[in-house]
Amino acid sequence: MAELQNDRFLRALLREPVDRTPVWMMRQAGRYLPEYRATRAQAGSFMDLCRNAELACEVTLQPLERFPLDAAILFSDILTIPDAMGLGLRFETGEGPVFDKPVRTMEDAKKLYVPDMGSDLQYVMNAVSTIRKNLNGRVPLIGFSGSPWTLATYMVEGGSSKTFSKVKAMMYDEPKTLHHILDVLAESVIQYLNAQIEAGAQAVQIFDTWGGVLTPRDYKEFSLNYMHKIVDGLKRENDGRKVPVILFTKGGGQWLEDMAATGCDALGLDWTTDIDVARARVGDKVALQGNMDPSMLYASPERIREEVAQILAKYGKGSGHVFNLGHGIHPEVKPENAGAFINAVTELSGQYHS
Amino acid sequence: MAELQNDRFLRALLREPVDRTPVWMMRQAGRYLPEYRATRAQAGSFMDLCRNAELACEVTLQPLERFPLDAAILFSDILTIPDAMGLGLRFETGEGPVFDKPVRTMEDAKKLYVPDMGSDLQYVMNAVSTIRKNLNGRVPLIGFSGSPWTLATYMVEGGSSKTFSKVKAMMYDEPKTLHHILDVLAESVIQYLNAQIEAGAQAVQIFDTWGGVLTPRDYKEFSLNYMHKIVDGLKRENDGRKVPVILFTKGGGQWLEDMAATGCDALGLDWTTDIDVARARVGDKVALQGNMDPSMLYASPERIREEVAQILAKYGKGSGHVFNLGHGIHPEVKPENAGAFINAVTELSGQYHS
Repeated sequence: MAELQNDRFLRALLREPVDRTPVWMMRQAGRYLPEYRATRAQAGSFMDLCRNAELACEVTLQPLERFPLDAAILFSDILTIPDAMGLGLRFETGEGPVFDKPVRTMEDAKKLYVPDMGSDLQYVMNAVSTIRKNLNGRVPLIGFSGSPWTLATYMVEGGSSKTFSKVKAMMYDEPKTLHHILDVLAESVIQYLNAQIEAGAQAVQIFDTWGGVLTPRDYKEFSLNYMHKIVDGLKRENDGRKVPVILFTKGGGQWLEDMAATGCDALGLDWTTDIDVARARVGDKVALQGNMDPSMLYASPERIREEVAQILAKYGKGSGHVFNLGHGIHPEVKPENAGAFINAVTELSGQYHS
Repeated sequence: MAELQNDRFLRALLREPVDRTPVWMMRQAGRYLPEYRATRAQAGSFMDLCRNAELACEVTLQPLERFPLDAAILFSDILTIPDAMGLGLRFETGEGPVFDKPVRTMEDAKKLYVPDMGSDLQYVMNAVSTIRKNLNGRVPLIGFSGSPWTLATYMVEGGSSKTFSKVKAMMYDEPKTLHHILDVLAESVIQYLNAQIEAGAQAVQIFDTWGGVLTPRDYKEFSLNYMHKIVDGLKRENDGRKVPVILFTKGGGQWLEDMAATGCDALGLDWTTDIDVARARVGDKVALQGNMDPSMLYASPERIREEVAQILAKYGKGSGHVFNLGHGIHPEVKPENAGAFINAVTELSGQYHS
């Protein structure tokens, strides 16, 4: 493997000194880029794109050609694991993901199994190794997975949801069934992320997109608990280098202390919590990744730059900050506004590091 | 006016002693009730139902016929104010509210005016006085309005939104335009709620459904600031009795102290904050209304009762708690489950009061 030329992302996650604040964007390889849309059209379906290592590599690298980003993230979907469990994943236009065989009963749950990383999910590992090779040491590669709770919401609902009525009814009335599902998912995520690390991922992020719809008690029991198990089960060092783990619960601002106590290296932060407040609460335990409102990218480049300056000033001096949006970049954003964001971080953050 | 026979809702909002914890449900007059759907079908459109004082009264009283609720809430919509501003409100099936004339520029904003409560919005006041008369002192009547920020999101977006791209672009790039809109809305809401109070509303609630999508800084500047103005401008006493004001920001759990500092009487609380934690933070300043997850009503009556018991125990002894859901009741809930919820509160809460 080529030597890593830019490691400020990995260093910041471990709260080691850096020359400036590293930056990347959740969903940076995505629909806001015309070159992404072109490759996507060529691939066929969305899952065809995920399954094609060459094309997945191509879209992963696209944003790096445009912007001075400090990390690349595997192009894939959070639903690869339930898809590999044979639940019949389809993407319906305008409707999002649909599972033909949702998991509704203990009988359904008992049929679930940990997919084989070497066959069922080999295509993800092929994408990881292809991307890592093509990055050629330019920046680190992030692997990722959905959190068990977040994956379970799709598997039980049979797709996206607004009220989470089915998975919450199961949680409240049949908690053992949900725990069984979450156990299989946690073990799957451990193997999945460890396989990504072995294939070349240099940091991993767990996306808990829907943890924030829970009560504090249920968040701990049904989401955080399983992310904690995953953190404990991960290969935290590979190839002589630490592999940092980032936990991101959207809407988790009230639970940062609990999240930091899992032993992860960094927390993703959405924009509803001030980063200075978050740093005061958990900055002695973890790095923080975030947290500009993704809708700020609808504003002018000048306003975006102003906001970046404010967030940098709020975090203040020292390492432990990876700049990012508070959620994925919206598909309607102009690429030049994303560029204004990234340039602002690279140009304005040096003063906070010595 | 008939004398009030059950005032435990008003007393709890003012943290005065009560015999048991009062209970009502946001959206208690709604689609989960077959009798509501029947009246709705008879009325024509949704706004026709709001505009017909007799039918609005009928649906307001329906849940009180089924359940031992401690308050009634005016049946109306949060978008009556922008509708009265002539923005062309329509309700599209499956799409929600649509404004034919969205507010996108300072020129649009300058055309906005405070609607005349005695003509444009007289139908709301007619509904209030009709309901109050028909309640005949049974329980207090709650008046309500959307918050200026929440109303502005619909007016600028032209309807519902997931990303709030247009209103956020305005907030970030043209804050003066948004402030102008919010100023007109705050003045309108003051006059609107005061007219409801004069027509017979005995408490008022401000619904800030979308305050939680903002950064802490923007929440204060663009949402809370205007709710504070409204609290300052309201008639807080009528007919020899205090008129309590409830502020409810969905997703506002991180900002309870700021909300309590407005001088309101009570805060609505969603289910992502524990009510014991909220009480410790602001219970010396305000009452708390909430906060069971509305999706708990998809569970069994036994499980619902267990949850009610837990929330009552968390709040603990003494007045200052109005039991409610953390958001509106979902349309798919079985009426008997709503009944199990309400009965559990009435049966289990006496022990926390002396």
